[in-house]
Amino acid sequence: METPPPELRRDPVTGVWSILATGRSRRPGAVPGAGAEPACPFCPGNEGLTPPEVWAAGRDGSPPDTPGWTVRVVPNLYPAFMPEARGRGWRRGTRTGRPARGEHEVIVNSPHHDRSLGDMEPAEAAGLLRAWRERYRHFASRPSVKHVQIIINHKREAGASLDHPHTQVFVMPMVPRAVADELREFRRFPGGKCPLCASVEEAREDKRTVAENGTCTCFVPYAARGPFEMRLAPLHHQPDFAAVEDGVLADMAELLIRTLGGLSKVLGNPAYNLWLHSSPCDGKDHRRYHWHVEVVPRIIVSAGFELSTGMCLNVLAPEEAARLIRQACA
Amino acid sequence: METPPPELRRDPVTGVWSILATGRSRRPGAVPGAGAEPACPFCPGNEGLTPPEVWAAGRDGSPPDTPGWTVRVVPNLYPAFMPEARGRGWRRGTRTGRPARGEHEVIVNSPHHDRSLGDMEPAEAAGLLRAWRERYRHFASRPSVKHVQIIINHKREAGASLDHPHTQVFVMPMVPRAVADELREFRRFPGGKCPLCASVEEAREDKRTVAENGTCTCFVPYAARGPFEMRLAPLHHQPDFAAVEDGVLADMAELLIRTLGGLSKVLGNPAYNLWLHSSPCDGKDHRRYHWHVEVVPRIIVSAGFELSTGMCLNVLAPEEAARLIRQACA
Repeated sequence: METPPPELRRDPVTGVWSILATGRSRRPGAVPGAGAEPACPFCPGNEGLTPPEVWAAGRDGSPPDTPGWTVRVVPNLYPAFMPEARGRGWRRGTRTGRPARGEHEVIVNSPHHDRSLGDMEPAEAAGLLRAWRERYRHFASRPSVKHVQIIINHKREAGASLDHPHTQVFVMPMVPRAVADELREFRRFPGGKCPLCASVEEAREDKRTVAENGTCTCFVPYAARGPFEMRLAPLHHQPDFAAVEDGVLADMAELLIRTLGGLSKVLGNPAYNLWLHSSPCDGKDHRRYHWHVEVVPRIIVSAGFELSTGMCLNVLAPEEAARLIRQACA
Repeated sequence: METPPPELRRDPVTGVWSILATGRSRRPGAVPGAGAEPACPFCPGNEGLTPPEVWAAGRDGSPPDTPGWTVRVVPNLYPAFMPEARGRGWRRGTRTGRPARGEHEVIVNSPHHDRSLGDMEPAEAAGLLRAWRERYRHFASRPSVKHVQIIINHKREAGASLDHPHTQVFVMPMVPRAVADELREFRRFPGGKCPLCASVEEAREDKRTVAENGTCTCFVPYAARGPFEMRLAPLHHQPDFAAVEDGVLADMAELLIRTLGGLSKVLGNPAYNLWLHSSPCDGKDHRRYHWHVEVVPRIIVSAGFELSTGMCLNVLAPEEAARLIRQACA
């Protein structure tokens, strides 16, 4: 049976947009415990188990869809956004929606099945972040694209459906609510200043800084939503990830390795969600925005309080969380 | 060591308020696998294991903090909001906060350790909902209280730290973001109509209605955020849960039993979060709001996409979810 293309639907009570992507119910792990583990489609030699690659780094003459790559990009087999989802939006009473037009890619982080970002060598991680930037630039320049969301779900408990470390790229026809909320915060912050730039200095005062290098910093936010949340950002104000220089990218890669390594030591390789927030590519002026990376370990079950209020409940002082990770990654 | 009272902190990048409540790190289950299971503090005979009760139903002469109750209310030992958290808010650069003044109560749903709301007799469930209303009214009339959030976390996977079914009541000094967002949706809906009233009729048209009785309905929302989300509401428009009549309360109780029972049959007693959204008690005019109950089964791990975008990814058509639960509870 043909699966209908994914669609975006807006709830008339909450205002939340959801993607209805029934094709994703067939992805591995969508039904827990369904059958034996098949071969890893992201390991070298198994390239034929994925759709044809759209980009790869590290090939030295080897043909596409064969081993020899260091980073490999393929379309997601179970996309949340699809180029085929075209057409106009609709509104029938409270039923508001539009086709979920866009793309959904998987970046295989490395050929190594067991090597997560925190375990990489600096050059390897820098190569991965250059792949992020490459795909970001590739999509952000298209007029139909309003936002590109890059994420890593580390381990099954964080929502990963395959163990082999990978990044997902969601190419979206709209600016999502969480990013729109952040844009508003940046726009409204008093004195025309950047709240992220200001909070970097405050983190140092409060001893919430986890680690820094020449161009990047990592700190636990004052209002961390849970234990060991970390925010990483370039020290120099920069709205758009597409504009990041190689040197800053390498520094961000080094800092990610170091702080994720510290987190892993403190918590014993925890599941985490990691995402990159950059200014949307909707053609508007977002010069007050400051791109950053967020890391949220999945050690607490968010529950009815969080769902019903949109607030968070944190039981660990951010200063203490920062101290523990700082010690572990020193 | 004295635990500091909980405080509310606002993130300058996301705008999200988080509660820093370090005392909650001592609650049972906060550290997974720590020690053997102690006696259940919510079972009859163990009343001495909780703080003294503040309210109870069903006592026929038995003294407080002894068996004989049908519903029992105690302060939460690990509160997210406390009356002692007094004083003014602060703003130091980006560091914005205020004391988390309020209350945090536990309503023990029944004396039975293994009887969840979906397993109750109608009269028993109606008694529980009358207890919700009693505590709601008790707090909503106080000038310092702006919102009362009632939730059930069913099972550990949904965030419950104790197995004995219970309700939590969060008494808050502010209207939380998720409720403020809903108020805006109700206010802005075209034609001065109620979007929830309108969606009830549409759910019938689309066959997304799960069950109805004389005064209440249960349906799967058009833009359900995940598989088997259910929304329950009184058919007659009513903003404020404090105003609900006994008859409607009994009907809501009956409908909750029936639809949670159906959900349990389809999914095998899944973990779920359940919450009640009523118009805030901040003294403003919320007559366009419509109180309702939301049920979200925890069968999908929300991951980096949801966290980074504030959107949801649903793999099951709402019409299909409604059909399955409807059949199971017919």
